[in-house]
Amino acid sequence: MPSMKTLGYYNGEIAAIDELRIPMNDRVCWFGDGVYDATITGNHVIFALDEHIDRFFNSAALVEIPLAFTKLWLAELLHDLVQKLDSPTQFVYWQVTRGTTERAHTFPETPANLWVMLRPLVLPDLTNKVKLITVEDIRFLLCNVKTLNLLPNVLASEQAKRAGCYEAVFHRGERVTECSHSNVHILKNGVFRTAPADNLILPGITRAHLIAHCLKLGITVSEAPFTVAELMSADEVIVSSSSTFCASASHIDGHEVGGKAPDLLTKLRESLLNEFHEATSAGV
Amino acid sequence: MPSMKTLGYYNGEIAAIDELRIPMNDRVCWFGDGVYDATITGNHVIFALDEHIDRFFNSAALVEIPLAFTKLWLAELLHDLVQKLDSPTQFVYWQVTRGTTERAHTFPETPANLWVMLRPLVLPDLTNKVKLITVEDIRFLLCNVKTLNLLPNVLASEQAKRAGCYEAVFHRGERVTECSHSNVHILKNGVFRTAPADNLILPGITRAHLIAHCLKLGITVSEAPFTVAELMSADEVIVSSSSTFCASASHIDGHEVGGKAPDLLTKLRESLLNEFHEATSAGV
Repeated sequence: MPSMKTLGYYNGEIAAIDELRIPMNDRVCWFGDGVYDATITGNHVIFALDEHIDRFFNSAALVEIPLAFTKLWLAELLHDLVQKLDSPTQFVYWQVTRGTTERAHTFPETPANLWVMLRPLVLPDLTNKVKLITVEDIRFLLCNVKTLNLLPNVLASEQAKRAGCYEAVFHRGERVTECSHSNVHILKNGVFRTAPADNLILPGITRAHLIAHCLKLGITVSEAPFTVAELMSADEVIVSSSSTFCASASHIDGHEVGGKAPDLLTKLRESLLNEFHEATSAGV
Repeated sequence: MPSMKTLGYYNGEIAAIDELRIPMNDRVCWFGDGVYDATITGNHVIFALDEHIDRFFNSAALVEIPLAFTKLWLAELLHDLVQKLDSPTQFVYWQVTRGTTERAHTFPETPANLWVMLRPLVLPDLTNKVKLITVEDIRFLLCNVKTLNLLPNVLASEQAKRAGCYEAVFHRGERVTECSHSNVHILKNGVFRTAPADNLILPGITRAHLIAHCLKLGITVSEAPFTVAELMSADEVIVSSSSTFCASASHIDGHEVGGKAPDLLTKLRESLLNEFHEATSAGV
């Protein structure tokens, strides 16, 4: 029976997040040495879990953190844990860190540590447009890996908040990459444009779903890089993540943007939301 | 009286490092959101402490982590803590993390957390030459800040270890920056060359001391960037950090390097080591 408000899990230990403590010598404490993934539930059903677990295993492999469990075992663990929370709609987050040892940069002999964090989530009202700022992308060249080295993302996110905005759009010179905790895409002349999934962006699961919905709806998809100027003059600007699906922007750096292809935007968004509701409405 | 083998400190709580636990919601766990500094002791005296504390406060300011204590208070805390350890020679490490709250990228309202970690240290035998590898520098552009986002450093350090080497020399294209946990310098035609202290390297305290000793000894110092080719053909290659002072390299990527200015190298190293021994020999 569900009974918990929040849930923290660390190597098998379970408690409310606020009550759980982890060893000072977990390598996350000295190096941010770990990778994570996250998605959401509806009616206690985890959405797109297999894709998130695939990406999680890929992130761990790219930085050589060995996992002592299978994808199926992790899926079953997460499935069991989300049943313990009162809230049917949850943020589902998990990470692995490279063991617990005396601080030394080189890899330890100790096994990796598995963490899970669950909390209630309120789904966003996507009819509310969001405001964005642009920020030079100073991050490392491992942006395709979902690591715990997120200080530049933290700084950009705070900068957006101080400007009264929801998100910061990173760009390397003229090239738009992604946001501090979202991907960013544009609609222009009926084409869905999104940055290529190279080492400069995270390959978003919602991004992949948006691409699939475009193909289903007959919307052409371009994965060629686009520029800040193209962002500013787009018909619509879309910000996507696993917990916010598909928001659209009204302003960037104080300038009005988008709003020129509302029907196409709505069609794409409804297609994505329908998929979520169909996948989760039956409950467990 | 000294009585501890190792010491962990977290917001006033003190225990052996292995026994200390920290909250799962410390922002280090989700974002690596913190900065640190480290030095060593001799005879329970902390070497170059004021310079390390200055750099620590600067790192915190650059990423906007407010510190609720003065430099003097921190110096006195560290001075008191190192007296608790049996070992007269210690690795002295401290960090601050951006508070403890529910995971969200933007800055929290909660105060920063102060950590200290002390353990025995064996001073290296600097007559042993070290081997190095070169690695493309893929790190972010905040390398002047001593942050806890160290995953690329971890990966490079492990790569060096697997090659049977002590350190990895980072380079951005042809330009040499620093190593994964050290600065790197060369001696060439009597000149001490070191990368400029911009946002691509950490402004090493030992680097600053080496520069000061060069000036005292009449050795010309150049802080212009140097290349991988210049590294390979240097008269001596020097790797410096607070815990290893001033090592010199015999091989890089399997090729013999340096060894062409042993007297100058020895003079510089002895000058630095004498400073350490003079500053710490009297004890407390």
